[in-house]
Amino acid sequence: MSEPLRVEAGGKPGESVVWIGTGLLADADRYLVSRSGRFLLVSNAASRSLTEPLRRVLSGRLLADVEIDDREVAKRLSTVEKVVDAALAAGVRRDDALIAVGGGVVSDIAGFAASILLRGIEWNAVPTTTGSMADAAIGGKTGVDHAAGKNLLGSFHPPRAIVVDASTLETLPERDYRAGLVEAFKSAWISDAELAARAERDLSALLGRERRSLFDLLAGSIRIKVEIVGSDPREQGRRRLLNFGHTLGHAFEAAGDYRLRHGEAVAWGIAGALAISRERAGLSEATARRLRTVLAGLGPFPEPVRDPALLAPLLSRDKKSTVRGIAGVLLEDVGRARVENAIPLEVWIEAAQRASLSPTG
Amino acid sequence: MSEPLRVEAGGKPGESVVWIGTGLLADADRYLVSRSGRFLLVSNAASRSLTEPLRRVLSGRLLADVEIDDREVAKRLSTVEKVVDAALAAGVRRDDALIAVGGGVVSDIAGFAASILLRGIEWNAVPTTTGSMADAAIGGKTGVDHAAGKNLLGSFHPPRAIVVDASTLETLPERDYRAGLVEAFKSAWISDAELAARAERDLSALLGRERRSLFDLLAGSIRIKVEIVGSDPREQGRRRLLNFGHTLGHAFEAAGDYRLRHGEAVAWGIAGALAISRERAGLSEATARRLRTVLAGLGPFPEPVRDPALLAPLLSRDKKSTVRGIAGVLLEDVGRARVENAIPLEVWIEAAQRASLSPTG
Repeated sequence: MSEPLRVEAGGKPGESVVWIGTGLLADADRYLVSRSGRFLLVSNAASRSLTEPLRRVLSGRLLADVEIDDREVAKRLSTVEKVVDAALAAGVRRDDALIAVGGGVVSDIAGFAASILLRGIEWNAVPTTTGSMADAAIGGKTGVDHAAGKNLLGSFHPPRAIVVDASTLETLPERDYRAGLVEAFKSAWISDAELAARAERDLSALLGRERRSLFDLLAGSIRIKVEIVGSDPREQGRRRLLNFGHTLGHAFEAAGDYRLRHGEAVAWGIAGALAISRERAGLSEATARRLRTVLAGLGPFPEPVRDPALLAPLLSRDKKSTVRGIAGVLLEDVGRARVENAIPLEVWIEAAQRASLSPTG
Repeated sequence: MSEPLRVEAGGKPGESVVWIGTGLLADADRYLVSRSGRFLLVSNAASRSLTEPLRRVLSGRLLADVEIDDREVAKRLSTVEKVVDAALAAGVRRDDALIAVGGGVVSDIAGFAASILLRGIEWNAVPTTTGSMADAAIGGKTGVDHAAGKNLLGSFHPPRAIVVDASTLETLPERDYRAGLVEAFKSAWISDAELAARAERDLSALLGRERRSLFDLLAGSIRIKVEIVGSDPREQGRRRLLNFGHTLGHAFEAAGDYRLRHGEAVAWGIAGALAISRERAGLSEATARRLRTVLAGLGPFPEPVRDPALLAPLLSRDKKSTVRGIAGVLLEDVGRARVENAIPLEVWIEAAQRASLSPTG
């Protein structure tokens, strides 16, 4: 095993550290942070085999071992309660730390639980999907869905350590693997034209899970997120760029009762945002076509629900919605994005109808 | 109405502002903060008449008007859910703000709800009891109880404005009025010998609700809390001094199934801490007697449950408990306190047996 890559994240130096490598979980003790040395493990059923090395390494220091349902329908306050109940029953103290092993839903729930336990205990994220690795819990957005919409309850609570172990991807189902890459490309598209060009060129190697190109894209998208979040931890300005494709993406996800994977819905959301960017941000048709070609290559993705009657209330309830309109991220060119604060609902609805993953639009 | 006193609180200038005066609610628009101009009102049944002026002033801009049960038994996650459900059903947006009108339980619940709604919306605190005024939501500790103990779930989420309107005390029941003054004296005792001496001298005026001495004590204890919290917002050092009397106090409260008022339990907790301070912090018997005399004057308070079998597990689960022991605040002299990090459980249990509110001990 070669030495892992270490990336400092978080507002202050050392606040969060990302480790990127292969086979890190067998040596997890070196990377996971707990002031007391004691941990609470939160994982999903799919990562059962992946957490075995952790259980061995942390034997005798695991206060609790909680398996949660990580389907989007279970991303509710009641699942957070399950985690906090187990932690409190086990006698969790302020200097203990939690570990979340799984995809984005696991870290959203476990991170939220950590943020409210004893008014906040530390936690570690071990993402095991391409999507959650690209996102990597950097910046500490945690949260759950509510009857009224997605991610409506939550907190900002960055993990102390993020352990990205590429070996955990070996057992990831193809559909999740591909959907997750959408998030990695998204980061490149909004702020790193060179990384985007390399990843686009390496697309077939990426789809073949070729390790070198996968590392390049994951490490690149993690660095982008670290840099953007570091400059705007509370999402008052630049951090909002990371929401590229997410305004429509979240609406597509909810309108289809979460049958689309998050990354798939974001792919459709990006397609819609490209249509708006053509009209309002000067994006060229050639560039829009280039991005649709990549998305088509990552797919094919199932069709989203485009019914305006379903999408409109979801868009209006978006967290990025204010009394003045619904904010969105528009692309001016590859590597250059900007936030437009008040895009009318009608524009979103129309883009949802036109969103296409066919290269020719 | 004379001009209110304005005290800056919070980490950064302007982050939280405390207004202290009389009749402020009739002019609440001037003090309450909301970026959108829209509000969500959360109050308890007892403050129904007090919130009428607010409803008039904010007519047409009140998104939701939620009345919650503010007994300690209702200080649970389910009550927080009631508030967030109402807020989301009303279409709350990130730039809207919440208002909490009531005692400490209302601001604990409403502040917690504000902290998790859309990952945090702004809020305003309108304390209507002596206890919540002295505490005044400064520093933004919010939270709820759990089957495993008190305040075990919560967050740090300071309100933008805190409106302390002394007119709201006119209808406060005598028992709540007296119990709440314990918190104000506590602040003076840990860090302001002059304020403590003045308040002790004015005790009968305070008990008679004489406005000038009440203002002096409330404004003084608010300034103390602002100053201490500003120097240590995350309670890693000096802020812990504010927990004087609270380690045993919380255990007394829970052991007695919350039949004691919070301030009453803290009075007994202070009595216990005085006994420990005599032995471990060099506190003189004369000073201990002086403080017990004040507490006796604020009372008489009902006897706490002192059963070690009930207190021990509660103390061990205290948030201030680590693997090394249970932290406590000890008094060296009036105006001078310090934190001792690992006081053995047996010492607390023994102090609980000896805690006395009789001047002679």
